[in-house]
Amino acid sequence: MKKFINRIDTLLDESLSGFARAHADIVQFNNQPHFVRRLQATKPGKVALISGGGSGHEPLHTGFVGLGMLDAACPGQIFTSPTPDQMLAAAQAVENGGGVLFIVKNYAGDVMNFEIAAEMLDCPNASVLVCDDVSLAKTHSTGRRGVAGTLVVEKMVGAAAENGADLAFCKALGDRINQATASMGVALSSCTVPALGKPTFDLNDNQIEMGVGIHGEHGRETLALMPATEIVEHLLATIADDLQLAKGQSVLLHINGFGATPLMELHLVYELAWQYLQKHGISVVRSLVGSYTTSLDMAGCSVTVTVLDDELTRLWDAPVHTASLRWGC
Amino acid sequence: MKKFINRIDTLLDESLSGFARAHADIVQFNNQPHFVRRLQATKPGKVALISGGGSGHEPLHTGFVGLGMLDAACPGQIFTSPTPDQMLAAAQAVENGGGVLFIVKNYAGDVMNFEIAAEMLDCPNASVLVCDDVSLAKTHSTGRRGVAGTLVVEKMVGAAAENGADLAFCKALGDRINQATASMGVALSSCTVPALGKPTFDLNDNQIEMGVGIHGEHGRETLALMPATEIVEHLLATIADDLQLAKGQSVLLHINGFGATPLMELHLVYELAWQYLQKHGISVVRSLVGSYTTSLDMAGCSVTVTVLDDELTRLWDAPVHTASLRWGC
Repeated sequence: MKKFINRIDTLLDESLSGFARAHADIVQFNNQPHFVRRLQATKPGKVALISGGGSGHEPLHTGFVGLGMLDAACPGQIFTSPTPDQMLAAAQAVENGGGVLFIVKNYAGDVMNFEIAAEMLDCPNASVLVCDDVSLAKTHSTGRRGVAGTLVVEKMVGAAAENGADLAFCKALGDRINQATASMGVALSSCTVPALGKPTFDLNDNQIEMGVGIHGEHGRETLALMPATEIVEHLLATIADDLQLAKGQSVLLHINGFGATPLMELHLVYELAWQYLQKHGISVVRSLVGSYTTSLDMAGCSVTVTVLDDELTRLWDAPVHTASLRWGC
Repeated sequence: MKKFINRIDTLLDESLSGFARAHADIVQFNNQPHFVRRLQATKPGKVALISGGGSGHEPLHTGFVGLGMLDAACPGQIFTSPTPDQMLAAAQAVENGGGVLFIVKNYAGDVMNFEIAAEMLDCPNASVLVCDDVSLAKTHSTGRRGVAGTLVVEKMVGAAAENGADLAFCKALGDRINQATASMGVALSSCTVPALGKPTFDLNDNQIEMGVGIHGEHGRETLALMPATEIVEHLLATIADDLQLAKGQSVLLHINGFGATPLMELHLVYELAWQYLQKHGISVVRSLVGSYTTSLDMAGCSVTVTVLDDELTRLWDAPVHTASLRWGC
């Protein structure tokens, strides 16, 4: 295993400390317990948006803390849920009279710990569960996983909260965006968790993992390497079927790299996905291409589609000022 | 070789087409010959800034086209210089009465082709040669390579040009920024050029390449893997010596990923570099962490330091609106 680290037990702290220093104009890092909070004061009564999850997916979620998106993020150890005390401390730090909305990716540990934190909170609160990964059937035992669509939920609900929407509105909006969003990923290589020191799964030189999860969970099937156009068709056919995409709809298309895939390839995947959607009468009216929801050093990418209406488009376009998403301000 | 591609001969066009579509609010892509130009009109008399070089380093340079940075970028084939006709066509498209400044990374092919283009241009023009890579001695036969410091030159000169500085000022400023900037990189793995289909160089499981170039050129030495703190000390000691960094100076610190290195590791490297500089009495007052000057799918990173004064700090802070750098507007 070759990585830029000193010791496995100091990796997360050193990385978070660097992150907070490099973005000291946007965030503050609380060390005990770990959370990253927005530096800029919020208006009294604003709903506080908090997310979190295992580390190793950067910039998700710490890179999305700031104006127009999250008020705080709770990073767990690598691929490990943060603990309820982190969520509670973060909530107490950023709650400002409007209650707390947790945005939670659908993994058992995250769900349980955010539920415990919610029970301990003495202010109005609610949770949005993100489960955009269509590689697993809706009937899967633990339900679908939350993957790159989480960014879309955080961005749009963040805009609504910044504009003064109340807790009930933000909760309902988050659920609606989650319903309108579908993602699917494909891996060209495994990731290597530092504490394990070896790849999470094996793929030979001619194999790809279709439907892979963001922790290197097995997907639908291991397939032979194929041209990018066919890979994109696999991903988008599943997404289109899940969302029941229809001619004339407008969508946000997000191509997400898993950490070790160059931007050049992500733009190529974007082009092919755009062509697929256009061929099916779907208009791509908003786009995001880059490595935003990563899996350490995994090579691969995911495609996320969100069906837009005027309200969601406005929320996407609203100003955002975070370490990793920034526009309009 | 596992990559998201269809055919090697269509890779660049498909990728550039996707890039231009995803950022159609900022750039326009000209297909014959290849160049990417800024969409927004410039003020008459503004110096036109043009850069370019082999592809495979994205987002450099296409991702830096837009307000406050480049007016056009000319992408060559992967790791291959663009041709003079691209540069000439780009210059003719964006020249607006203030002359043309070429920003050229110091590689023989780029230098020669930009010189030919300059001779063919019938408007005032000048060139800034970027040679920030301190891994090679100043006395090296072809001089130092231009690497991640190119972004700093493009950003700051871009701000000056946007503010109405004339050609002579922009040229002198670019040379001054180049002098104030030093970079050095380290590879944990090779990159794989698609047309070759195999890694450019070999490193075993316990080796790193210190002083590597952004095309996978050999560096100073192949060393055994070491803790991140020691790697950072290797890089920064060379940089500090070259720039003759002195206590009390203020710097911009840019940690650049080569394409396959996760943000978590880059933030860790940033933290260690910050600590090194602080220990030596140097203040990091501006920061940039991310994969901006890449080498396809190479794992590794570079450290760039620019010694700042008030003028350079103001130029760095000035508004920029490109696909990959965006602030202040």
